[in-house]
Amino acid sequence: MILTLSCPDRHGIVAAVSSFLLARDANISDAQQFGDASSNTFFMRVVFEPADGDAQPAIRDAFAPLAARFEMDWTLRGGEPRKVMILTSRFDHCLADLLYRWRIDELPMQVTAIVSNHPRELIGHVDLGDLPFHHLPLKAGDAAAKAEQEKTLLRLIEETDTELVVLARYMQILSDDLSRALEGRCINIHHSFLPGFKGAKPYHQAHARGVKVIGATAHYVTADLDEGPIIEQDVERISHRDTPEDLIRKGRDIERRVLARAVRRHLEDRVLLHGKKTVVFED
Amino acid sequence: MILTLSCPDRHGIVAAVSSFLLARDANISDAQQFGDASSNTFFMRVVFEPADGDAQPAIRDAFAPLAARFEMDWTLRGGEPRKVMILTSRFDHCLADLLYRWRIDELPMQVTAIVSNHPRELIGHVDLGDLPFHHLPLKAGDAAAKAEQEKTLLRLIEETDTELVVLARYMQILSDDLSRALEGRCINIHHSFLPGFKGAKPYHQAHARGVKVIGATAHYVTADLDEGPIIEQDVERISHRDTPEDLIRKGRDIERRVLARAVRRHLEDRVLLHGKKTVVFED
Amino acid sequence: MILTLSCPDRHGIVAAVSSFLLARDANISDAQQFGDASSNTFFMRVVFEPADGDAQPAIRDAFAPLAARFEMDWTLRGGEPRKVMILTSRFDHCLADLLYRWRIDELPMQVTAIVSNHPRELIGHVDLGDLPFHHLPLKAGDAAAKAEQEKTLLRLIEETDTELVVLARYMQILSDDLSRALEGRCINIHHSFLPGFKGAKPYHQAHARGVKVIGATAHYVTADLDEGPIIEQDVERISHRDTPEDLIRKGRDIERRVLARAVRRHLEDRVLLHGKKTVVFED
Amino acid sequence: MILTLSCPDRHGIVAAVSSFLLARDANISDAQQFGDASSNTFFMRVVFEPADGDAQPAIRDAFAPLAARFEMDWTLRGGEPRKVMILTSRFDHCLADLLYRWRIDELPMQVTAIVSNHPRELIGHVDLGDLPFHHLPLKAGDAAAKAEQEKTLLRLIEETDTELVVLARYMQILSDDLSRALEGRCINIHHSFLPGFKGAKPYHQAHARGVKVIGATAHYVTADLDEGPIIEQDVERISHRDTPEDLIRKGRDIERRVLARAVRRHLEDRVLLHGKKTVVFED
Repeated sequence: MILTLSCPDRHGIVAAVSSFLLARDANISDAQQFGDASSNTFFMRVVFEPADGDAQPAIRDAFAPLAARFEMDWTLRGGEPRKVMILTSRFDHCLADLLYRWRIDELPMQVTAIVSNHPRELIGHVDLGDLPFHHLPLKAGDAAAKAEQEKTLLRLIEETDTELVVLARYMQILSDDLSRALEGRCINIHHSFLPGFKGAKPYHQAHARGVKVIGATAHYVTADLDEGPIIEQDVERISHRDTPEDLIRKGRDIERRVLARAVRRHLEDRVLLHGKKTVVFED
Repeated sequence: MILTLSCPDRHGIVAAVSSFLLARDANISDAQQFGDASSNTFFMRVVFEPADGDAQPAIRDAFAPLAARFEMDWTLRGGEPRKVMILTSRFDHCLADLLYRWRIDELPMQVTAIVSNHPRELIGHVDLGDLPFHHLPLKAGDAAAKAEQEKTLLRLIEETDTELVVLARYMQILSDDLSRALEGRCINIHHSFLPGFKGAKPYHQAHARGVKVIGATAHYVTADLDEGPIIEQDVERISHRDTPEDLIRKGRDIERRVLARAVRRHLEDRVLLHGKKTVVFED
Repeated sequence: MILTLSCPDRHGIVAAVSSFLLARDANISDAQQFGDASSNTFFMRVVFEPADGDAQPAIRDAFAPLAARFEMDWTLRGGEPRKVMILTSRFDHCLADLLYRWRIDELPMQVTAIVSNHPRELIGHVDLGDLPFHHLPLKAGDAAAKAEQEKTLLRLIEETDTELVVLARYMQILSDDLSRALEGRCINIHHSFLPGFKGAKPYHQAHARGVKVIGATAHYVTADLDEGPIIEQDVERISHRDTPEDLIRKGRDIERRVLARAVRRHLEDRVLLHGKKTVVFED
Repeated sequence: MILTLSCPDRHGIVAAVSSFLLARDANISDAQQFGDASSNTFFMRVVFEPADGDAQPAIRDAFAPLAARFEMDWTLRGGEPRKVMILTSRFDHCLADLLYRWRIDELPMQVTAIVSNHPRELIGHVDLGDLPFHHLPLKAGDAAAKAEQEKTLLRLIEETDTELVVLARYMQILSDDLSRALEGRCINIHHSFLPGFKGAKPYHQAHARGVKVIGATAHYVTADLDEGPIIEQDVERISHRDTPEDLIRKGRDIERRVLARAVRRHLEDRVLLHGKKTVVFED
């Protein structure tokens, strides 16, 4: 079972949590914590094996008063895989990568649906198998149609009990409303090293600026475009020899590994929100 | 001897240059070239051993017509060390690093002077030895004094035949006039991964934004602040545990190695200007 | 068209090659060269657009005398995709990655066959599509059967005109004879940072040794196991938290990108053999 | 104050330690822990601010019974800087780097002495200031003289209360006896990515093998040469263009940053021994 919590930092949090688990005869197999001095906030992630017969609801009930006392934001989860929906465009390298990792059991998730604004035939390089696919078309500049499409999308998210939405190079900007509705449970991969090149065609921007390193950024989606809390970033060296097309190619490799790491860490409850930032307890 | 050139790309440049050197019985020990398709510009760097008794002025005269025919921007230099002036502040880690590399013969340069707006006593962690030190004070907000200081600085640059000015965390913004006067021969180290965090206190900006990677950028100084042609960049991973002070400390390591690489490449004629970008023939 | 060559280093090679191409009105779009001082060997790769109507056989015939004069090892190829056979085991992450890159046109190759010592059902996470699959079983310890299997394999390589064999985590050691027969056209991915951990279970070795960085190595296969010329290597940081299973997982990412880069560079004639080493003209 | 401990892993360690500190009204500012499943060993590092007037001896006495109960190996230290002796050769880049970092307060240490088998004049690129320098000469092949030199060295270590000995490219192999005497408190920088190239001239070995990445390794010295517990490693990409001299130059940068990180982590009690490996609680 995985317990995560954040709360105002003060004496006795670790003692209280560890004593609570000891009293229930739970066995801690991993624990990481972090106290942020500037905001006086404490973060913790504990992985433990409960005593035989000790079930999640009982532990939850027992922990609630302690959590209330320390004003904790907290979650308690068993190891059950999370329900994940993946949105994609014709640039399906992140989708292909996520599905492969899922198939070899690298990502503990259950895929509720693949969604795209393009028809299934255009997602041409990936074997979707039996996964439900939904084509939710969009028309550039048609705001009403977009609102309608997002309503359908949100309904689909709810009907499938989707817990995490992954924008795997979806290439569409979510509305403020949808962004807010999915706060903390929607991860986007931006194809630049934020805050470096925001907006469209970042590899072309990078080429024009003559940078010597390019990168990608996985972040939670917020209404404030490209400003959401960053989960993971990575980079690669480039040179003057690289055309924008080379950057796009090299970028695909960065994007897919950055997104996969971010998704994995989210699924393992390693990412805790800290205002506009994240605390990531690495594996 | 090192020949560098850039010119409009067309047939026969390599053949012309290599035949020219062959005819003079020069021995090419290294050659790198690059044709930029988007701007149709050709860049080349050739290291060669001239035939016995063949001197630089003679080669220069002989090459000039060929260069004119291909409309080349070109330089021809022997291996003599370049004259370099280093400007610094109390943050002397880049200065210390450059001087150490110079002392162990890693940087082929002759140091004409160390200049700072702080008195010598404040450059406290570096052994300046017999190097000339000039204290050129500045007063915040006094524009007239600044103009005067820059005049003194420029005169010093001229009197010492300084070929390259290195802003080794000088922490002062050069005026547009001085920037233009030093175009292509003044390298600055900016303590962020440009274009990420421009302006002041980039490590604090990086901390506030919650990035997972920080970097540094060495670039030629232009009147357009933080927009000069980038020579070299590098990065390091950070985490939520890092305070702004940690970022400053980790940043020092990135800054000094990025600046040292940029200076070294400039001194070895490996950096060719390409509009707002650079072509860097790596070693 | 791509011309690669290596020969004893002496005056006039570049002049001769570039003059040859100029005389045929060919347009050089890229050229890289390298002179190895220690072995006095010269390497060159030239990409050029021949004049209209100038065909490969004619260029080849014309170039032969020049090549002979300089004692060149040389190749001349058009842009036609190479014929590639991929050998795999149940660890199919490299296979999946190569096929995906091939499908999105990142790897200029034609896949002649997928071969495994396991039946097709066990290659479970990859969509093989219509690609020919050959199950060539092996029995541990049965030397005669292995010799037979390799004979079948070699015949298949010949019948399909396969130009490059990729051991994509094939997990079988080729015999000396087969290694020799495939010299310079068989690439293996070794799951360690050679020469660090040779032989079996390198990630377990790395865990036992307590290294802080792991890596992978793509190299040409030679009869001397794990000693073939290295084409590409890459690494990732690890920590004491990583179990051998974590290393295997993290290693998959390194392996697939290292192998893909090596294969790509081979397919683009960027890798020139240099005794037990390689010269790699990077893109 | 910093508490580090390792012990057999079992229920209640964290609860016991955190309750102990809570009961003394100490304020935990940082805590990291790690349970190694394969060896069933638990590791912990706690940084805490004791209550006003609570002194180290008292805390130590009070903690001892708890430590005994859990069979802990443990240390408790205030923030006082450690006493460090640095051994060097004419390759003084690591020495120069450590001293610079010490001067700008990046390394919390007190330098007891600089020792070399070369006379002070040969340590030519570093300003030693007022630091005690000891010339302890060695004669190649003279075992008796070496034994004598090491006796002098060990006496010096004892007389100066040196807590950590840093071999900053000392280039001499310590005897088994001295290695054992300094177990866990002597850090060496090896100029290769261990276990890649052991023994002498690793950069020449790397060049001969044609690797594409070089590295350096900081480890505790043991009688088993180049096999001591690894604290930190790092790498850089190289290419076929690099001569052995280039590798040596590039290696200097890797060596000094790897050694500095290792020393810093040791000084901050972040490195816990785990058999032939280390647990490093990163900052």
